[in-house]
Amino acid sequence: MGKMKADCSSQKNTIMNKIIDLTQLINSSMTLYPGTVPTSIEKYNTIEKDGFAELKLTFCTHIGTHIDAPCHILKNMKSLDQFPVDKFIGKAIIIPLKNETEISLEFLESFKERLAEVEFVLFYTGWQFKWNTKKYFDDFPTLTKEAAEWLTKFNIKGIGFDAISADKVDFNETDLSVALRNHNILLEKEIIIIENLTNLDKLPETVFTFQCFPLKVENADGSPVRAVAILD
Amino acid sequence: MGKMKADCSSQKNTIMNKIIDLTQLINSSMTLYPGTVPTSIEKYNTIEKDGFAELKLTFCTHIGTHIDAPCHILKNMKSLDQFPVDKFIGKAIIIPLKNETEISLEFLESFKERLAEVEFVLFYTGWQFKWNTKKYFDDFPTLTKEAAEWLTKFNIKGIGFDAISADKVDFNETDLSVALRNHNILLEKEIIIIENLTNLDKLPETVFTFQCFPLKVENADGSPVRAVAILD
Repeated sequence: MGKMKADCSSQKNTIMNKIIDLTQLINSSMTLYPGTVPTSIEKYNTIEKDGFAELKLTFCTHIGTHIDAPCHILKNMKSLDQFPVDKFIGKAIIIPLKNETEISLEFLESFKERLAEVEFVLFYTGWQFKWNTKKYFDDFPTLTKEAAEWLTKFNIKGIGFDAISADKVDFNETDLSVALRNHNILLEKEIIIIENLTNLDKLPETVFTFQCFPLKVENADGSPVRAVAILD
Repeated sequence: MGKMKADCSSQKNTIMNKIIDLTQLINSSMTLYPGTVPTSIEKYNTIEKDGFAELKLTFCTHIGTHIDAPCHILKNMKSLDQFPVDKFIGKAIIIPLKNETEISLEFLESFKERLAEVEFVLFYTGWQFKWNTKKYFDDFPTLTKEAAEWLTKFNIKGIGFDAISADKVDFNETDLSVALRNHNILLEKEIIIIENLTNLDKLPETVFTFQCFPLKVENADGSPVRAVAILD
């Protein structure tokens, strides 16, 4: 049998590409959007007591690296289980921000040709390094209204960020149509939003495959995902 | 912008292959292994009340289409978050059962050449059609001891079933080393087990890509997954 393994190793490698995990760890002390129900991970069964180990998980659909579905914000719009499964995989590019404090249309226009080639766009803000600190919620760059509206004209399945939200965290703004403006613009066009990505610094400038298959929860307004990039 | 979409559509299609969802739906009335903590899906925030919708999910790590990690049964063995992410994707074949009441070494030997080429093996028992009925727990075919041990000699990452378990459901057998024999044999070799798959009747006889990325839960003994097959 040893020979059998050796003989097939080169064959197997032809299909396997480099895979980069873009996912934050889920535990009971993880960063949560302010006001979110706490994540609980309970040792419900243990090998010592029961002969097998099972955790009882309790969490919100919008924890860690997760997708926002259109029905997260908008009435009568799709939940994640209503999309065909190929909604959650496609060609992608990373757009790295440098000193931009917002993601403007002017900034994005230089990526016009590349945006036309892909189905996912990931914005690398650098906030991934502030995960699990209070600074994670402050001053991360977000899309301007014009930029968000312009992006909906492309044939894009989803837009991702290494930050807590597609909109600023601003509890002084009580009008949610303002506070969640970018969510509204994107989700109304069925462009899913992926938040709290990480390892975006490890992605190449070239096109790669991004995927973020959600749990198949009935009527899911969101779902934590194991987001990965597959490089050629 | 309409032209831009049209121009790039053929390019996009070159990367996209046919994707088949192999995942059972998660809801509060889903089939669970006897004794498992009930799955709860609570509307915690609603658009009417809060301006946004979020579900509070409570479930065991071993519900629906899910992975068993080595530490599910075996002390001091790996949890899912301890594997590199490429553990959860690879070339796969489906082995369909016809009238076999068990999966014997004799039956498997005719698949020897094909098993050497892949990283995942999925057994199509037909029990997927009994999901959400009491018959789902009865008499599904499982690996004999010899067959399970023989499979560990291949370079396999994981073995999947469209049934509730890799072992019979038998509560008269109180010795778990007997009742969970196949779990022990496979997990001891770090071969992950994928249970409650579905749509296995839709898979081709040829090699395809199987993937089952788990949630990135700390110390996860298992995880529900969105299992999919990607066909060339």
